[in-house]
Amino acid sequence: MKNAEIIAVGSEMLTPTRVDTNSLWLTDKLNTLGVEVVAKYVIGDDRTRLAETVQQALVSSDFVLISGGLGPTEDDVTRDSVALALGREQTFHAPISDAIEARFRKMNRVMPEINKRQAMVIAGAEILSNDRGTAPGQWLEVNGKVVAILPGPPHELKSMFERECLPRLEKMLPAVAIRILGLRISGMSESELDQTISPIYKQYENPVTTVLAHNGDMQVHFRARCETVEAADALLAEVGAQVDAVLGDRIYSRNGDTLEAVVGQKLMAKGQTLAVAESATGGGLAERITSTPGSSAYFVGGFVTYTRRMKTLFLGVSEELLAQHGAVSRETAQAMAEGAREKTGADWALAITGNAGPTTDGEEAPVGTIYVGLAGPEGTEVNHRVWAANDRARVRAFAGQMALDMLNRKL
Amino acid sequence: MKNAEIIAVGSEMLTPTRVDTNSLWLTDKLNTLGVEVVAKYVIGDDRTRLAETVQQALVSSDFVLISGGLGPTEDDVTRDSVALALGREQTFHAPISDAIEARFRKMNRVMPEINKRQAMVIAGAEILSNDRGTAPGQWLEVNGKVVAILPGPPHELKSMFERECLPRLEKMLPAVAIRILGLRISGMSESELDQTISPIYKQYENPVTTVLAHNGDMQVHFRARCETVEAADALLAEVGAQVDAVLGDRIYSRNGDTLEAVVGQKLMAKGQTLAVAESATGGGLAERITSTPGSSAYFVGGFVTYTRRMKTLFLGVSEELLAQHGAVSRETAQAMAEGAREKTGADWALAITGNAGPTTDGEEAPVGTIYVGLAGPEGTEVNHRVWAANDRARVRAFAGQMALDMLNRKL
Repeated sequence: MKNAEIIAVGSEMLTPTRVDTNSLWLTDKLNTLGVEVVAKYVIGDDRTRLAETVQQALVSSDFVLISGGLGPTEDDVTRDSVALALGREQTFHAPISDAIEARFRKMNRVMPEINKRQAMVIAGAEILSNDRGTAPGQWLEVNGKVVAILPGPPHELKSMFERECLPRLEKMLPAVAIRILGLRISGMSESELDQTISPIYKQYENPVTTVLAHNGDMQVHFRARCETVEAADALLAEVGAQVDAVLGDRIYSRNGDTLEAVVGQKLMAKGQTLAVAESATGGGLAERITSTPGSSAYFVGGFVTYTRRMKTLFLGVSEELLAQHGAVSRETAQAMAEGAREKTGADWALAITGNAGPTTDGEEAPVGTIYVGLAGPEGTEVNHRVWAANDRARVRAFAGQMALDMLNRKL
Repeated sequence: MKNAEIIAVGSEMLTPTRVDTNSLWLTDKLNTLGVEVVAKYVIGDDRTRLAETVQQALVSSDFVLISGGLGPTEDDVTRDSVALALGREQTFHAPISDAIEARFRKMNRVMPEINKRQAMVIAGAEILSNDRGTAPGQWLEVNGKVVAILPGPPHELKSMFERECLPRLEKMLPAVAIRILGLRISGMSESELDQTISPIYKQYENPVTTVLAHNGDMQVHFRARCETVEAADALLAEVGAQVDAVLGDRIYSRNGDTLEAVVGQKLMAKGQTLAVAESATGGGLAERITSTPGSSAYFVGGFVTYTRRMKTLFLGVSEELLAQHGAVSRETAQAMAEGAREKTGADWALAITGNAGPTTDGEEAPVGTIYVGLAGPEGTEVNHRVWAANDRARVRAFAGQMALDMLNRKL
């Protein structure tokens, strides 16, 4: 198995607010080629330091990918540092300079003299064209190993890597078939999920399993790496069947679609419509449903009833019911859902009431309490949960997930 | 100025989905002490490689902070690697082992034999106590330089750093006063903001200026580093006055409060209430307003009217007006705002209608078009913008920002 190391260059990447995301994207691409990333670096604008890092990386690994530091200023040290690391000269390459000049002309600007630095090429390098910016990349083969210099802006780097580096790497690496089975799961906690499926995935080194969890929404990826597509598919089918057997209908998507998109597809297929009534989530459920393009085909709208008066005024929840059971109650959730369904004429209505915290005024339910009502053609159901999370944003996100999960199972 | 390097350890940190966030938090703490971070690394579970990295970092920098790799298994290589790098022995430290054992007993569990590895201490190390987990840290002084070994889980690392490392570092470093002026700005683009204030901040190496932009909401931080608090405050006052002069009322917060929180405070001070009516943002504006704890004191609720029929039914927008001007129009925004104000009885109502994309059906306004209506005690205003961004989530976020900005100026 071949190894790679990734170096991000730039003092701005060493501040408390900047994260190097290029390396995550590159790692995914390299893993798919069967290459493992064994080290990552962020190095400031320091020629000596960067040159040493490149030398060290070349000792341990087969591929060294460098991103950033290709701008026109004195602070952009990548070209100089790699030349220094390899003990090679740089020469001015007129066609690059002309292309940069043409790019400036197209924007009705004159190329500053300083940009000519971007046309300096290290001896022996192949030029990697940049179709999204001025700085070209460079590809250097050194004793069978590779140093690739790529631009820092992610859209420039991604385009260059896919057009220029992938074909070169594929030629150097044994053909390998990578297939991914991606499942999305709802209705259980992350630890429940892991307990349920780990006895399966721990039997396999291949496929590699990744579990991602975010506010009650979970994804499991199985990445199979085989000599042929058929072998990889067979392996995923074998693992997938075992996972299906233990997770059942908690798997809501097998193609990456979100829960709100899956619910939308089912509603469209049935020609049905949906409305919502929200208290604790304050509009977050409607926001999530409408984040899917085309949602106006099945989502008619919603109510954010943040006071008792609005629950009465717009959803017809009676004052007596609110007084008797409280705004955070099974009865209120049911009345909100039925009110929203009736007022909008939608086939389905989801209602959420609860206490997202961070505090409770004493008479209300404890922080983390959520009631979800679902009114539909055959009546109304209410589910109830109390989350320990004392985090307003998380409780709200969990509540939205619970509501969509209820509707999805019903559909 | 002293330098630091930060090493994150663990093969799991070299996957496409994991980001080392400990280094961001540590960078912030180190910068506040006047220490600059000049390199960061992520190294897999490889003793030789990690030992080499530690040695190299110690050549270039004064402080080397290592996070992770302190667990009890063979894959946890940090203790061994640092011992190897420094050429020092490790010895078993019974009190650590006893403390770990007690921790297990408290959870009614027996300490596995393997956890005794966590009680191995490198010769000459001071032990850094862990009040959130089992693995203690270690503090090593080497020829006036420091290697600090910290646990990987962020809550363990943060607690240990603040209790154990900060006091030690403060003793080693010259006293320095750091003061921060943090402004939040709305109503201009990031490039307009930078063009406006860069002639000011470029005159100063101290304070250090950071501009953060996220969907139309911007923050500018000035970090002054002086010998005394008075000098730092005077410097920030000098820079702040110049920034005030050019930005004026586009600065909406000087204490970190969000735009929705500032609007809420102003409403509460006046004893006034707010309602919303949303089409394009689909509940996102209500969600944002209610993300502020205590928002029920001034936010009564909202309508998500995702169809023409709902605009008519719930906001009283006439069918003739919709037919004549379209759902995405100045007239509809005005009627939605006035309808929401009237139906809820709130003092203010914000309405958003527009086309967030990604496509338009031809009869509607172009993608990125947003109208915001604000109905209040003295009448209704409508503002209009078209964003070039062909990104549904961004257009929706910009629209919410624009709406809150309008109300904030009015208040």
